[in-house]
Amino acid sequence: MTLIVKEKQNLNKILDYLNNLSIPYKVNSTKELYLLDIEDTKNLLDEKILLSFEGVIYMTPLLDKPFLWSRKTKNEDTIIPLNHYTIDSKHITIIAGPCSIENKEQLNTIAVQVKNIGAHILRAGAFKPRTSPYDFQGLGKEGLTLLEQCKKEYKLPIISEITDLSQLDLFVDHVDIIQVGARNMQNYELLKALSKINTPILLKRGMGCTIEELLFSAEYLLKGGNNNVILCERGIKTFENSTRYTLDLSAIPVLKKLTHLPIFVDPSHAVGDWQYVESMSLAAIAAGADGLMIEVHHTPLCAKSDGLQSLNIQHFHQLMQKCKKIAQAVGKEIL
Amino acid sequence: MTLIVKEKQNLNKILDYLNNLSIPYKVNSTKELYLLDIEDTKNLLDEKILLSFEGVIYMTPLLDKPFLWSRKTKNEDTIIPLNHYTIDSKHITIIAGPCSIENKEQLNTIAVQVKNIGAHILRAGAFKPRTSPYDFQGLGKEGLTLLEQCKKEYKLPIISEITDLSQLDLFVDHVDIIQVGARNMQNYELLKALSKINTPILLKRGMGCTIEELLFSAEYLLKGGNNNVILCERGIKTFENSTRYTLDLSAIPVLKKLTHLPIFVDPSHAVGDWQYVESMSLAAIAAGADGLMIEVHHTPLCAKSDGLQSLNIQHFHQLMQKCKKIAQAVGKEIL
Amino acid sequence: MTLIVKEKQNLNKILDYLNNLSIPYKVNSTKELYLLDIEDTKNLLDEKILLSFEGVIYMTPLLDKPFLWSRKTKNEDTIIPLNHYTIDSKHITIIAGPCSIENKEQLNTIAVQVKNIGAHILRAGAFKPRTSPYDFQGLGKEGLTLLEQCKKEYKLPIISEITDLSQLDLFVDHVDIIQVGARNMQNYELLKALSKINTPILLKRGMGCTIEELLFSAEYLLKGGNNNVILCERGIKTFENSTRYTLDLSAIPVLKKLTHLPIFVDPSHAVGDWQYVESMSLAAIAAGADGLMIEVHHTPLCAKSDGLQSLNIQHFHQLMQKCKKIAQAVGKEIL
Amino acid sequence: MTLIVKEKQNLNKILDYLNNLSIPYKVNSTKELYLLDIEDTKNLLDEKILLSFEGVIYMTPLLDKPFLWSRKTKNEDTIIPLNHYTIDSKHITIIAGPCSIENKEQLNTIAVQVKNIGAHILRAGAFKPRTSPYDFQGLGKEGLTLLEQCKKEYKLPIISEITDLSQLDLFVDHVDIIQVGARNMQNYELLKALSKINTPILLKRGMGCTIEELLFSAEYLLKGGNNNVILCERGIKTFENSTRYTLDLSAIPVLKKLTHLPIFVDPSHAVGDWQYVESMSLAAIAAGADGLMIEVHHTPLCAKSDGLQSLNIQHFHQLMQKCKKIAQAVGKEIL
Repeated sequence: MTLIVKEKQNLNKILDYLNNLSIPYKVNSTKELYLLDIEDTKNLLDEKILLSFEGVIYMTPLLDKPFLWSRKTKNEDTIIPLNHYTIDSKHITIIAGPCSIENKEQLNTIAVQVKNIGAHILRAGAFKPRTSPYDFQGLGKEGLTLLEQCKKEYKLPIISEITDLSQLDLFVDHVDIIQVGARNMQNYELLKALSKINTPILLKRGMGCTIEELLFSAEYLLKGGNNNVILCERGIKTFENSTRYTLDLSAIPVLKKLTHLPIFVDPSHAVGDWQYVESMSLAAIAAGADGLMIEVHHTPLCAKSDGLQSLNIQHFHQLMQKCKKIAQAVGKEIL
Repeated sequence: MTLIVKEKQNLNKILDYLNNLSIPYKVNSTKELYLLDIEDTKNLLDEKILLSFEGVIYMTPLLDKPFLWSRKTKNEDTIIPLNHYTIDSKHITIIAGPCSIENKEQLNTIAVQVKNIGAHILRAGAFKPRTSPYDFQGLGKEGLTLLEQCKKEYKLPIISEITDLSQLDLFVDHVDIIQVGARNMQNYELLKALSKINTPILLKRGMGCTIEELLFSAEYLLKGGNNNVILCERGIKTFENSTRYTLDLSAIPVLKKLTHLPIFVDPSHAVGDWQYVESMSLAAIAAGADGLMIEVHHTPLCAKSDGLQSLNIQHFHQLMQKCKKIAQAVGKEIL
Repeated sequence: MTLIVKEKQNLNKILDYLNNLSIPYKVNSTKELYLLDIEDTKNLLDEKILLSFEGVIYMTPLLDKPFLWSRKTKNEDTIIPLNHYTIDSKHITIIAGPCSIENKEQLNTIAVQVKNIGAHILRAGAFKPRTSPYDFQGLGKEGLTLLEQCKKEYKLPIISEITDLSQLDLFVDHVDIIQVGARNMQNYELLKALSKINTPILLKRGMGCTIEELLFSAEYLLKGGNNNVILCERGIKTFENSTRYTLDLSAIPVLKKLTHLPIFVDPSHAVGDWQYVESMSLAAIAAGADGLMIEVHHTPLCAKSDGLQSLNIQHFHQLMQKCKKIAQAVGKEIL
Repeated sequence: MTLIVKEKQNLNKILDYLNNLSIPYKVNSTKELYLLDIEDTKNLLDEKILLSFEGVIYMTPLLDKPFLWSRKTKNEDTIIPLNHYTIDSKHITIIAGPCSIENKEQLNTIAVQVKNIGAHILRAGAFKPRTSPYDFQGLGKEGLTLLEQCKKEYKLPIISEITDLSQLDLFVDHVDIIQVGARNMQNYELLKALSKINTPILLKRGMGCTIEELLFSAEYLLKGGNNNVILCERGIKTFENSTRYTLDLSAIPVLKKLTHLPIFVDPSHAVGDWQYVESMSLAAIAAGADGLMIEVHHTPLCAKSDGLQSLNIQHFHQLMQKCKKIAQAVGKEIL
């Protein structure tokens, strides 16, 4: 790490600080400035404190480090192989399904239809994080079993959300992709546990979290050894209240520039109203997203959760047709 | 306006209030509730106060009124005829040009090129609202004259930003579309003056303003008699700092549902970095925007303002090619 | 629940929906409106869907329900008894201590000093949720043991943050108050587990969460039977970047009106700079907060985390003197 | 301005750029870095562009310049003398009055009362910037005349909001302080005109504007020669919706550190509900504000604008008593 400092007296305070922590350094100087090369191999330094010393006018920026998510570390786009399907950056991957697993019939009905229409992966929640404790909390383990039956019967890879690390074995046994929800993006104990397995992880951006924080949460997963990480934009909290959250589509080109990880978008949760899902899906693909996650229900108004934002089968069919055209227009394909 | 009130004693307080203001009303009642029909023809009532009375459980929502921007008032999409070009919802309109007019040569160089590449309208600022008083404030009247020369020479309609109503005559004489910038979206004296002319207005959304507030500002223009209003999304202030503002593309389907006015998007100011302009432009068209406003400069790094976010000629050319494909994919055309 | 609907055909669709879910209801009607009394005893309804039906002009608002956090359910301010101290709304409670437990000497040095200066509760983190996986993650169980030694030696109740429910037994055995951090405010599995114990919980508001969402998270705790809940405002994410977060002090009177639970404020994390901690602490007390949580370190710049926002001993002493004056001015006392 | 650049080839590109603009510079170098001293006396450079060149690792920060608002330029707190009263940082100044001037009787009734209770300055709007064009727009010039009569009769300095520079002469003739509203904070033509007069200006922070942007708007006023500038925090737009805006009280210590200008707070507009005005007023004084601006109405529910957020006379009386105690607790006085 390089530090540039003005004035000798400021330099001396920093050297005291470094000596105190036994951190080695070298000093070079020009007429007016001091250059400090610090070797913080044990990661003892708080960079914000260094920056706060008087006279410090420059420090190697944090994001310049060779993080595992960075294109500086690995430039080729990450490819994530699943049973029966592979996620890559040349194809648009469509994940579709109901918000919650309600019962066998509901799940099967939806699974068959989204498969026929062309979805590549089936989504459905068994453990539901709900704002109110009085809302439907999901079928739990029983739900996952129903989901796995669909996977086998329809040869559709499945994704479902984990809400606590006590569920880890269950998820490793049953699902193809484990979803970490927006509310758990900074649940670091969960991330550490998920970093030790190989099951692909779809990591949703927290509604109050920056792109940088999302990348740091991904780093928890990568650092532990799980390289199969998908990032998912799903809206942030802003003052605008005509949509449930504000979908930050600029995150797509920003992330594409910084990281080799696949970028997905969940327009359903972001806008909270099925009428806006189609246009946001098309926009996401046009902006460069690698995949979409869409809520679909055969009878949306009877869904046990998030019915308002679910597309019905017909609208999902129409969405797929349009997505294919946009994908083609940006030189990609939907298998 | 209809009000529903619980309990007689609550009703009586409201009736006192209405009597006090001499506003006529009728009361109907069920077993538990009172229905109050109020005829506030003189617009004397503050609806927020009515809502604040104890026992009021319902009031006709504000946005249900027949505002002039509303599809309830007029469902057909507004068409805006210009010299040499017409803005409508079947074609994607491309506005392009430099942030500021710097001199004749710069303006002409850019105008010729964007015209050749296919832009329909030339943008360039003569009066520049700058955060710092030490930044370049624009060429003023002289700039507008240079801009008008381009208009005549290249048969390109022109748009430029007005920053005070003292400039009104100048703009009416010179430009085809008057831009009201984000910082002036709620400059109501300016809006009132612009409502009295016929020159089309492109009204940018304030960076701290909701979609509802944008529509109310448009209402100032429409109410005075100027029907040629274009709305323009250009990013809102959020906690995310990897882009200059957060481009709110969901505003497009939300506005398209509510209003008959054309919706444009300015990705350049929203993201503040030319590298993200292309993907946000494509996303805007995919989401249903009627037009784009793009900053283009022949030597972006030498621009007197906003050089970082300007596309160079080559990148603008590439953008146009891609925009055409996306337009086609959503069933629209770029003339 | 009461619903008011316009027009017969709209009513019929809703009745179909309710019949479909076998939910009982009664209908009354006036000339223009239909009143529907619905008995959703099994909580089968999604209220957002009901509201989305055409013609629905009113529904009993969600927050009118008798939630356990509500003053409608219990008006008297909640009192939380601890060993050696009681939290109530007549006294200002001061929680102080370092961000992280670093070692025995550091913790003891700070504990003695904050106790002497008048702090009522000692805070210190053993499990640290850090944005980057490369930052100091805390001493874990060993840290809690050191903290408990302080508790015994100095007769100071202690508070520390839990980051996963696997740590639950450890926390129940060791600490007087369990802190749920902002990043875990919506970790519902954790909240459910904490609702089953009696140890008081300090629940921090998520940086992207509304006051309403904070209350719903508190409801998870109260519903399970843990009544000892403290709410803590610690800043929200906004576009302003001169402070780390924006401390939302209006949350204090808003929460005080709605709930009987004690309201604390953590100015240290909110502003992220010790220079602003004092004024925000005084403001919090003036606004009606019941307590403060302040980061204090004997050598802030050598702290292993959050050193920039920690007060040193002298500044903490000065803060306490000023807090006492403000407390007195608003009719409260600091014991 | 100093620039630090890595690698010779990067340096050369910057030198080309500077040569191109004919800007003089000097280069020094160390083993690894190049130091560039640039003399941009004509302010030709766009600093954001310089920063965007590859290899630039440091540039003298913008806020280090000797701006006129800065304590680096002038450390003593600005004192603003008015007829019958002086604004300084040792006393808390209370501005009170109705949102709008409605008629002579209303204004006089309120003026007498707030004067008797101890307000130092009377506020009342004659030109009202309203979100909807159908809302009461104020009495205009006639209102200002009524306000001036109060000023003379009760020897109370008066403040009112200007909404367009065409009103300038009128305001200079009539009022003691001219208010620039939040919606006009970046109306630079208005600021330039106001910079040429001596009447004190109260500049409100825009609801979507940062503290830095507020200071730059103040710089427009100071640069033109008007040194009598008061800054006023009045809430920013955030996702929290239990209050109308989020009052950013951290802005007080941040601004107090940076600038010598007086800092006022308008809690009435920020929270939008009179029930929260008292606690936010006390918090503002505790946080170090120099003054408050409070909406008061003798019959708030009959006010023609913003009645919900206005204190009645009795509540204002109570507020003043409590403000005095808090002022004393922080070592200040209310005359």
